[in-house]
Amino acid sequence: MFTQRITPRFGETDALGHINNTVFPCWFEQARKPVFQIFNPDMAFDKMNLILAHTEFDFLVETYLKDEVEVKTYVDKIGNTSFTLLHEAWQEGIKKATGKVVMVYFDFKTKKPLLIPEQYKTILKKHFKED
Amino acid sequence: MFTQRITPRFGETDALGHINNTVFPCWFEQARKPVFQIFNPDMAFDKMNLILAHTEFDFLVETYLKDEVEVKTYVDKIGNTSFTLLHEAWQEGIKKATGKVVMVYFDFKTKKPLLIPEQYKTILKKHFKED
Amino acid sequence: MFTQRITPRFGETDALGHINNTVFPCWFEQARKPVFQIFNPDMAFDKMNLILAHTEFDFLVETYLKDEVEVKTYVDKIGNTSFTLLHEAWQEGIKKATGKVVMVYFDFKTKKPLLIPEQYKTILKKHFKED
Amino acid sequence: MFTQRITPRFGETDALGHINNTVFPCWFEQARKPVFQIFNPDMAFDKMNLILAHTEFDFLVETYLKDEVEVKTYVDKIGNTSFTLLHEAWQEGIKKATGKVVMVYFDFKTKKPLLIPEQYKTILKKHFKED
Repeated sequence: MFTQRITPRFGETDALGHINNTVFPCWFEQARKPVFQIFNPDMAFDKMNLILAHTEFDFLVETYLKDEVEVKTYVDKIGNTSFTLLHEAWQEGIKKATGKVVMVYFDFKTKKPLLIPEQYKTILKKHFKED
Repeated sequence: MFTQRITPRFGETDALGHINNTVFPCWFEQARKPVFQIFNPDMAFDKMNLILAHTEFDFLVETYLKDEVEVKTYVDKIGNTSFTLLHEAWQEGIKKATGKVVMVYFDFKTKKPLLIPEQYKTILKKHFKED
Repeated sequence: MFTQRITPRFGETDALGHINNTVFPCWFEQARKPVFQIFNPDMAFDKMNLILAHTEFDFLVETYLKDEVEVKTYVDKIGNTSFTLLHEAWQEGIKKATGKVVMVYFDFKTKKPLLIPEQYKTILKKHFKED
Repeated sequence: MFTQRITPRFGETDALGHINNTVFPCWFEQARKPVFQIFNPDMAFDKMNLILAHTEFDFLVETYLKDEVEVKTYVDKIGNTSFTLLHEAWQEGIKKATGKVVMVYFDFKTKKPLLIPEQYKTILKKHFKED
């Protein structure tokens, strides 16, 4: 599991008084930073090798401005050229929203997926959600 | 179908040189404005009656800064208390990304879903995707 | 003058029910797109030659979600290596917010300002605010 | 001084490979959260009593995605109905950008500025920048 603490920003609320739905993709992307760094430790843009193919979000309960949010990120599945992550946004002990993303190991020059090297799979496997 | 023209913003690109994935939820939300106005013509916040339960996004091809984007929005399904919309982001004749959202007709005071009145269903039905 | 019509997005409101202050930099940047294109018609990132040195914003009246916003952009001053733009956000005939930005004509390789060529100054001068 | 650590988000970069200028208003707003809480400890929206009148930003050096940013916030001036804050964004020991904001103590019902109570001035004075 990867964890990322988030301080909600005033501008991330909307007129209904809660965190707007469009903010969760930003929070979850921030929470994926250690995953990017597995594949590209220096975060060098010319060595980027992950591309986002699919994201989805379930909004369970309203998230508020006041309290800190903890985003927990798990590896869900590891395929040949892609893997799936799960995100959970927790606030005051309540699971407020969840997300799922499919990331593809990708050659930006040829614009084609690549086989994920075993060394990366081994690291990813350490972050499976335990039952 | 609802359509919304979008002028991509420089700050909506990321270091890979394309529109960042977190921007599509914002564009698609903008494209849903006429849907909000079916249910709440004045967009009065104390009369809001739609809540977002689920969103998902597929990123098909990179979207660029330079050219205008057209977001096409269709109604996909209409249930008793919720409905599903489909979004497509087109740029230079190419479908770049798609989205799906589930919106619930909702009483913000009791925090419960409500049956969608027939008058709204009738309007939504005019926006089904034609084959 | 350059003009840009903006459709305010739901996520651009905040919990006070108005457009959040952090949104105006995004709108004004969008409104500068034709200025970028004077200096870099293709918006090619490897030919970018403008850098932002300073921005400022005055918030005059609350901006609302419902109605379209028109951003008017003027050239205020043209120096040797930099120029100043003024932005105004209008909604329903009311000037809601203004902005000022200082842009530097810049060599991203040497990281040094460059003299603005006369051809660009001539175009910029056509966009001075008339009294 | 107030301090806020920020983890730059991938989507906060732009196509030039640095943090986009529109992000600093968001970071600095986040850094003002303890200031909001002086005036409104519960962050209750119906008790909000601060409004932003003016912001400005100087971009000194490019800010990068990789390393954490620390935002330092100082009180600069305290007037009768308003006060000025200074923000500094530091990364790897380098001051990358600065900001100044003017906040007005404000009655949202009458839409008029109010005299800042002494009790709040006393707390603000503890956050002057020391020489």
